[in-house]
Amino acid sequence: MIYSRKVFFYETDAQGIVHHSNYPRYFEEARGYFLEKNGLPYEKVRDELKLDVVLLELIVKYKKFLKFGDIFYIKMYPKVLNKYFFKFEYILTNQNNNIICTGETKHCFVKKENKKMLSIPKEFLRIIEQNTIR
Amino acid sequence: MIYSRKVFFYETDAQGIVHHSNYPRYFEEARGYFLEKNGLPYEKVRDELKLDVVLLELIVKYKKFLKFGDIFYIKMYPKVLNKYFFKFEYILTNQNNNIICTGETKHCFVKKENKKMLSIPKEFLRIIEQNTIR
Amino acid sequence: MIYSRKVFFYETDAQGIVHHSNYPRYFEEARGYFLEKNGLPYEKVRDELKLDVVLLELIVKYKKFLKFGDIFYIKMYPKVLNKYFFKFEYILTNQNNNIICTGETKHCFVKKENKKMLSIPKEFLRIIEQNTIR
Amino acid sequence: MIYSRKVFFYETDAQGIVHHSNYPRYFEEARGYFLEKNGLPYEKVRDELKLDVVLLELIVKYKKFLKFGDIFYIKMYPKVLNKYFFKFEYILTNQNNNIICTGETKHCFVKKENKKMLSIPKEFLRIIEQNTIR
Repeated sequence: MIYSRKVFFYETDAQGIVHHSNYPRYFEEARGYFLEKNGLPYEKVRDELKLDVVLLELIVKYKKFLKFGDIFYIKMYPKVLNKYFFKFEYILTNQNNNIICTGETKHCFVKKENKKMLSIPKEFLRIIEQNTIR
Repeated sequence: MIYSRKVFFYETDAQGIVHHSNYPRYFEEARGYFLEKNGLPYEKVRDELKLDVVLLELIVKYKKFLKFGDIFYIKMYPKVLNKYFFKFEYILTNQNNNIICTGETKHCFVKKENKKMLSIPKEFLRIIEQNTIR
Repeated sequence: MIYSRKVFFYETDAQGIVHHSNYPRYFEEARGYFLEKNGLPYEKVRDELKLDVVLLELIVKYKKFLKFGDIFYIKMYPKVLNKYFFKFEYILTNQNNNIICTGETKHCFVKKENKKMLSIPKEFLRIIEQNTIR
Repeated sequence: MIYSRKVFFYETDAQGIVHHSNYPRYFEEARGYFLEKNGLPYEKVRDELKLDVVLLELIVKYKKFLKFGDIFYIKMYPKVLNKYFFKFEYILTNQNNNIICTGETKHCFVKKENKKMLSIPKEFLRIIEQNTIR
């Protein structure tokens, strides 16, 4: 599964490149796309299941940079860690197939009303497992 | 009443200047500061009065631009329009006293739970009137 | 010409709606799309013509709000004002065809190296005139 | 050295908390403050030394969350890794002295004009070493 779009001008900074704080946002966009394509859009997680997904850890390793006008592509690799925790690994490339950065995010589910941690819901477990590369 | 701070690097864009979408955010910061200095911080408006302030209209006229490293100063002029609506006018200058932009925002209060419009609360009316230049 | 995409989660705020400062960014995205579809992507304006487009005035009138999960649609109406200035008018709707906001931006071209104002380049004049509704 | 400020409303998201992508921005603000307090503001690095500081790696471990109205405090610990690389470690707390997140960023210097990596400049080495806790 690949998420892709063009860089917006407002995502650049005075170094002439995409500001580093946008990559965690690109990863979030990719997770939203992943959920949607697997039939469980995040709106549904929030409004029907009354759950939130929380970010626990974020790692980004910057190799090269994106510039305005570039198109980026994100390949993502989900993985269940245990009953509570799951993670995504990301490889972000540009239109010339250069690796721009790699990343990793670790998450859990919480109840929306009180932010208490819950074990990963069945619907979501199934989606992750279907998309895990062994 | 003047709100002031230094430009952050992540607020710049590839033109080497502060991206235009940050000025509405600067105005919001200034409104927060205004409320706080007048003893009615926006946290209290939301958590105790259970109200939200909604933005209805935004105007910005850009004259010059801010760069990284600049310090900006916002003078703000509040005004009650009628029972429901109030506005702020802003003049944003830099450390050399150049006018960078001017702006205007029009607002009303809504109930937090259902977003229904309410007349301006007394506490707030008083604050605005105390700060209105006649 | 219509520009459209889904709202990203990071564009929402603690009122549970899209933060108002994102609408000027949506308008910028729509302008980028407009230039690209008309064969003059903004990258080319900057890198080949060595020009920048500057924002001089911004008006947004907020009618309703977008929420996470919504899809927005922007119809844009460009217009030449005189030798130097041009503007865009915007109507932004959601997936239920409700008007969320309307807006207007006024612009000019500047030389990238020194930010001096120039008259509107011929290539761009033609594009605007082709897309102006009379 | 401690950097501190209040959370802005536009930094919150529909979960009612500060969006995770703002913490890397808070770290950047703290680095700017660190440079300024040590007599080498980043404007000077860019405009006089003609250098840029590049982010190579980012780690954030989220423990709790900030809400609108909170004040955050960042303690930072710089360290030289070798001739080329240096890092900062961060501990971000709120007004109740709860640890909200910890983080780490790895950097190097590049020439502004061509983005080529350079060894750490003497002025900067001295500043880091003066602030390193042994």
